[in-house]
Amino acid sequence: MLKAALHSCQTRVDQTLASYLDALPGTAPALKAAMRHGALLGGKRIRPFLVYAVGDLLAVDKTKLDRLAAAIECIHAYSLIHDDLPAMDDDDLRRGQPTVHIAFDEATAILAGDALQTLAFEIISDAESGLAPADQIAMIAVLAKASGYLGMCGGQAIDLASEGKSIDLTQLTQLHNLKTGALIRAAVELSLIAAHACERDRDALRTYAEAIGLAFQVQDDILDITSTTEELGKPQGSDLDANKSTYPKLLGLDGARRTAEALVADALSALAKMPYNSQLLADFARYIVERRV
Amino acid sequence: MLKAALHSCQTRVDQTLASYLDALPGTAPALKAAMRHGALLGGKRIRPFLVYAVGDLLAVDKTKLDRLAAAIECIHAYSLIHDDLPAMDDDDLRRGQPTVHIAFDEATAILAGDALQTLAFEIISDAESGLAPADQIAMIAVLAKASGYLGMCGGQAIDLASEGKSIDLTQLTQLHNLKTGALIRAAVELSLIAAHACERDRDALRTYAEAIGLAFQVQDDILDITSTTEELGKPQGSDLDANKSTYPKLLGLDGARRTAEALVADALSALAKMPYNSQLLADFARYIVERRV
Repeated sequence: MLKAALHSCQTRVDQTLASYLDALPGTAPALKAAMRHGALLGGKRIRPFLVYAVGDLLAVDKTKLDRLAAAIECIHAYSLIHDDLPAMDDDDLRRGQPTVHIAFDEATAILAGDALQTLAFEIISDAESGLAPADQIAMIAVLAKASGYLGMCGGQAIDLASEGKSIDLTQLTQLHNLKTGALIRAAVELSLIAAHACERDRDALRTYAEAIGLAFQVQDDILDITSTTEELGKPQGSDLDANKSTYPKLLGLDGARRTAEALVADALSALAKMPYNSQLLADFARYIVERRV
Repeated sequence: MLKAALHSCQTRVDQTLASYLDALPGTAPALKAAMRHGALLGGKRIRPFLVYAVGDLLAVDKTKLDRLAAAIECIHAYSLIHDDLPAMDDDDLRRGQPTVHIAFDEATAILAGDALQTLAFEIISDAESGLAPADQIAMIAVLAKASGYLGMCGGQAIDLASEGKSIDLTQLTQLHNLKTGALIRAAVELSLIAAHACERDRDALRTYAEAIGLAFQVQDDILDITSTTEELGKPQGSDLDANKSTYPKLLGLDGARRTAEALVADALSALAKMPYNSQLLADFARYIVERRV
């Protein structure tokens, strides 16, 4: 069930992103192609999945979810394009394919990231969205806060500043709460806004999002050690090479695994506080820490 | 009067930007300092001036204008930070001071640009703004469209693709309409939305914005030839060095000057269609083509 749902979300968000990007005029063909390359490079589409799964749970209209899923994936895609740049992580490959600055050039990659960030806000602010203006504004506020200095960008800056230094567990957790956690929480929050969710559901799903956001990063750190370069689609052990602080480094491999399991347990008990069939979200929480890529 | 108004706008927008940036927590100090450096590097503050001048003309509350001026300047500042990067224009100096990637490093400059773009949308979507949600959404839609593929980013991509090629006047005008014109028009549009302006005023002020936006770029091209490096705060003749198509190159220096004058005349006759005292905006249109920097 989870596999089919993940696949269906991937297909939907790819179709939605492609329709937005294909609708752009051909005035700057290299930029358009680079945006398409960066946005449609595949990937697990975890943030869109959360938008759809939480939205479905709370009976939000699917066409509204399409828009939210596409917007948050634009932010994620832009961040990957910029993170891969030579001045940042300097990665030539992502998901086994050339990164945007390799497939195009650095200037185009910078611009493609910039324009994908803008596109996220354009998609949500669209007058044709069928969303109420008050909801749109709340969504944009959430997305902006999760993306900027107080979220993803701030986390990436802390990550850069921490390279080659040893940081403690509190600092590592703060880093990931900002760098990856903020956008994962925002995915859930967008659907909560669209659903006008009650306080009980908001509390439960926010706790769920926080737990799986962190579990996701713990598992990523584990996979960097235990997976192969082929499975990852990027060089195995790259965290070790970059002398990065990771959960396995601070807690040991077993300690990191126990932390991931404890976070999944938190996520599951949060789901149990709602009277809905949340099997799909529960399966997803387990998938987060059992995945091999 | 214009000089005092320009100075007052510079002071107000600097204070507003500083207050937003200083309010950020110190979690990522280098990123915060780089955002501050990029946003508060000085400059003419043409877009904020237009927000204030049009907003004042149409009696919009000044505290609302502060927010709009700061947001549009965040977008402009982010674009300068990214344009200056080695992979783009590779400029070490801006307004006589080190550019962000020189004062900090490339990775921090990329992130500072990214986070300033986000901040623009955060500033407008703020629940405490006193703006009506429908107005906020219209403003975000305008700002996003002017900044992204359909505006500034698209224009910059066309500019990069045109380097070393000869393009004709239509293409050059399209390039600048996107690269710089879109954001100048957006500055006016933000105040039109805040004012709930009538159709007559919207038409007149949009025509004004379009004319001065283009005039601004024509004059920039003229100054690149006629000004000194000291006056410009960046190397004189850098367009010639980069083998860029410019108005003086396509029209001759006199032809470019006549074009700028004709655009100012268009701007002034647009202003005359409104029954207000628009002296300040008229003076500004003249200033655009008479400035030496």
